[in-house]
Amino acid sequence: MTKTKVLTGITTTGIPHLGNYVGAIKPAIEESWRDDIQSYYFMADYHAMVKGRDPKRIHESGMHNAATWLALGLDTDRATFYRQSDIPEIMELNWILSCMTAKGLMNRAHAYKAAVQQNVADEQNDPDFGITMGLFSYPVLMAADILIFNAHKVPVGQDQVQHLEMARDIAKRMNHNYKTRFVLPEAVVGEETAILNGLDGRKMSKSYDNTIPLFVPEKKLLKLIRKIKTNSLEPGEPKDPSTCTLLQIFSAFANEEEVLAKKAQYEAGAGWGDLKNELFEYVNDKLKGPRERYNELLQDPAFIEAELRKGAEKARAEAAPFLQQVRQAVGIKGFV
Amino acid sequence: MTKTKVLTGITTTGIPHLGNYVGAIKPAIEESWRDDIQSYYFMADYHAMVKGRDPKRIHESGMHNAATWLALGLDTDRATFYRQSDIPEIMELNWILSCMTAKGLMNRAHAYKAAVQQNVADEQNDPDFGITMGLFSYPVLMAADILIFNAHKVPVGQDQVQHLEMARDIAKRMNHNYKTRFVLPEAVVGEETAILNGLDGRKMSKSYDNTIPLFVPEKKLLKLIRKIKTNSLEPGEPKDPSTCTLLQIFSAFANEEEVLAKKAQYEAGAGWGDLKNELFEYVNDKLKGPRERYNELLQDPAFIEAELRKGAEKARAEAAPFLQQVRQAVGIKGFV
Repeated sequence: MTKTKVLTGITTTGIPHLGNYVGAIKPAIEESWRDDIQSYYFMADYHAMVKGRDPKRIHESGMHNAATWLALGLDTDRATFYRQSDIPEIMELNWILSCMTAKGLMNRAHAYKAAVQQNVADEQNDPDFGITMGLFSYPVLMAADILIFNAHKVPVGQDQVQHLEMARDIAKRMNHNYKTRFVLPEAVVGEETAILNGLDGRKMSKSYDNTIPLFVPEKKLLKLIRKIKTNSLEPGEPKDPSTCTLLQIFSAFANEEEVLAKKAQYEAGAGWGDLKNELFEYVNDKLKGPRERYNELLQDPAFIEAELRKGAEKARAEAAPFLQQVRQAVGIKGFV
Repeated sequence: MTKTKVLTGITTTGIPHLGNYVGAIKPAIEESWRDDIQSYYFMADYHAMVKGRDPKRIHESGMHNAATWLALGLDTDRATFYRQSDIPEIMELNWILSCMTAKGLMNRAHAYKAAVQQNVADEQNDPDFGITMGLFSYPVLMAADILIFNAHKVPVGQDQVQHLEMARDIAKRMNHNYKTRFVLPEAVVGEETAILNGLDGRKMSKSYDNTIPLFVPEKKLLKLIRKIKTNSLEPGEPKDPSTCTLLQIFSAFANEEEVLAKKAQYEAGAGWGDLKNELFEYVNDKLKGPRERYNELLQDPAFIEAELRKGAEKARAEAAPFLQQVRQAVGIKGFV
């Protein structure tokens, strides 16, 4: 049976929050348990450099993210779990792909265009002010991340769909010019339901500063849940569960039956205070185990490191011979 | 004694000609014999990919260039002689530097600007038509080539001075932001006298199709020397040696005394036919030994390969620990 290869990059620029968990981590880990799927998860630390220049932050975020995935039950024997920077083959493929990537393609990348627009809005003389080559060319690195393993599917947010198109475009050009056989990767866009709202009702995101970190201490979790914005309906008044952030979070952890029962509570007029307390109890109960494991793992960086090195070995066992094929195809090879 | 590190890249896109020999190869090999200099010479095969997409050409040119340097007496125990593509540390540093390189810097690179100008002249709708990310970003790769070894000096043609400025700029930004201690490399621009004219009197260059390949067979060498453009002065008439391509080539191989004697022949009215035949005899005598060795080497690719691998090992023994330092500085490192 040929497995479908699914690849997920985790940019190591912050601490995972509930939104990350619901939108990306939970479905990814569940997918990794399926027999028809070969999963790849990687700490995208070289992408993180594009977004920030604080070495401590990049390093710590890598550790917190790795600990999170491990604490949540990622099976590292089934999945390939590695750090991008441990796979030098990616950086080499990045250059090879650069030589086959039209600059015009990068000119049209959203992130770059947004940065230029901001400069224009700020009346900067240079539209490229403050833009690095890292920002400009990171869709090529992203293509290398994907193409080195010939991943079939890449779960992404809507904002990354364009980058997947670019990876396909680059793969096609390689295949056309060098007769390579790169798989053309497909974007898998998460369902709308997998997007979680934050404290203020907008999408939960670091940029809005409205997140609930996944593994905050119990007391802090309660405090944050109590801060979630609701409306002014009194206890006793029926409430609409469909637009409620509390129910959204609840649904991410509960089964169908539990969700139905919870909706009934809304319609029966449960008070916001009770609903919040109950949500805390429920979610805290689910998170308690992984949170404990997470905190243990952070005390045991050697274990995290060993897991990532095991993953790097697996990843390179695949990437290295494949890169050799690509090198042969483009004329980069030894003389014997 | 701290040695001065001198680094020379050899783009593997063609077969070395007399102009390459006089302008770059000869002075470089002589420099490698000096005790106060540590030389690095590398086959820039990943740069060659920017210039052409013919795998066979890149591969063969690598072999011909390596054989040329070895045949001319490069001492690979003193110098570090390697293939760029054998040093993955360069590709990794390339990405790290990208994240610290202003895109605006690349916008101003000569090679890119020339390509845009050509598109504008051709009335292309897209000024970036046909331009790859490889072409656009290769000054960053060049900076990585140089900075990975902390080279002090880089002998270059006038057209490459700007790229050295860029490498310095990138190194300064790295040092400023991450407290790294990259050496700021200096361009060493070859003297005008080291530029050789070609068959038609213009600078000898592949692009003008006016070259004399360094190791052509004897008969072909004679034929090409006879094709060198001279003027219509008859035997017996005094001739000006100062503007003569024949004397230029002669001077590249002869000592001062011999050059003086040759100039006297010009003033005494030697005929062009005799001067050409004598030049052939003289140069052929000097090239005979290396040419024989060159042809032997081409029959023995395993030897060339072994020499380059020896060089790669030496180069990586230096590059790998240095890259580790850079990675530490930017926050890319293990958790233990």
